[in-house]
Amino acid sequence: VESFKTPGRPRRDIDAAVFETTLRLVHERGYATATSERVAVAAGVAKTTIYRRWPTKGALIVDVLLDAFGGAPPLTGKTRDETIETVVRWAAAKIAEPGVGAAFVGVFSDAVSDAALRELLATRFQEPYRILLQEALGASEQQVLFLVDVVAGTLLHRMGITGEPMVDEDVDALVDLVTRTRG
Amino acid sequence: VESFKTPGRPRRDIDAAVFETTLRLVHERGYATATSERVAVAAGVAKTTIYRRWPTKGALIVDVLLDAFGGAPPLTGKTRDETIETVVRWAAAKIAEPGVGAAFVGVFSDAVSDAALRELLATRFQEPYRILLQEALGASEQQVLFLVDVVAGTLLHRMGITGEPMVDEDVDALVDLVTRTRG
Repeated sequence: VESFKTPGRPRRDIDAAVFETTLRLVHERGYATATSERVAVAAGVAKTTIYRRWPTKGALIVDVLLDAFGGAPPLTGKTRDETIETVVRWAAAKIAEPGVGAAFVGVFSDAVSDAALRELLATRFQEPYRILLQEALGASEQQVLFLVDVVAGTLLHRMGITGEPMVDEDVDALVDLVTRTRG
Repeated sequence: VESFKTPGRPRRDIDAAVFETTLRLVHERGYATATSERVAVAAGVAKTTIYRRWPTKGALIVDVLLDAFGGAPPLTGKTRDETIETVVRWAAAKIAEPGVGAAFVGVFSDAVSDAALRELLATRFQEPYRILLQEALGASEQQVLFLVDVVAGTLLHRMGITGEPMVDEDVDALVDLVTRTRG
């Protein structure tokens, strides 16, 4: 059915073009400017294709973030502190990729006043990582959500204030801070 | 000169009406929707008055945040950990006020791709608190900026994910986390 609707171009190629274009527009022109319509034009994809796949800009950005973050890094055989350090450095590297941090801060800004988008962020984006971390750390949902707030919040606040990802020395300080916690 | 331009209404009354209206619109309808033009209409203030005082929405939001946060809480005679705890609880309470957290997350989202707005946020909003904290804690600029990233970032990330301020139990955990640091 999908191939009938979008003849000649496999869905995964369309997704890849849309995700790459969205991050580029967010990076070059800012989150507010990167509308679904501008993404469609810049990616050379029909607007109807975009709106059928992602009914809102929030839904598009959540999938862009999912694609950018991909699977979690391997966590088996690690101590608690090694697990946390791996996750912090992975998150810092992902947020530092062009457009990713800006897309993340932007979607939060929309989510504060959009319950449906918060639900999408929580279930589609955050939940798989949260469950993985709960298992890897033997921690409660509340403990992992707090850890995610601290790590993602710190990295994103730095990006909002400076426009740049956190430098290595401060990422080290963040690793130090959260591995010293005994939740 | 100012009273000639805005006859009959003292500037501080206009500021108060504009700040209160901005927070209310951000709280009720979201950051993106709360444009300078809508604020002018809802506050009953001429658009030219708004644009003369705050040439951009970012400039308006920075002043709204400055007004909402006000002076820092008293820090004299406190230990290092008491100082940090006071600041964390003060920031948590301010960010929990209706519209304040949403305005904060929103302005960061714009600032990521707007160097002039970042400069305004850093110098007009953040710098006075940073200098005060450096003196109160005997800490370096880098240490205080990192502390601010952790505290404000964590509180704002929670608001972006849940749409609600952080509950007391998690604010306690945040106090615990940052007072255990030995920068």
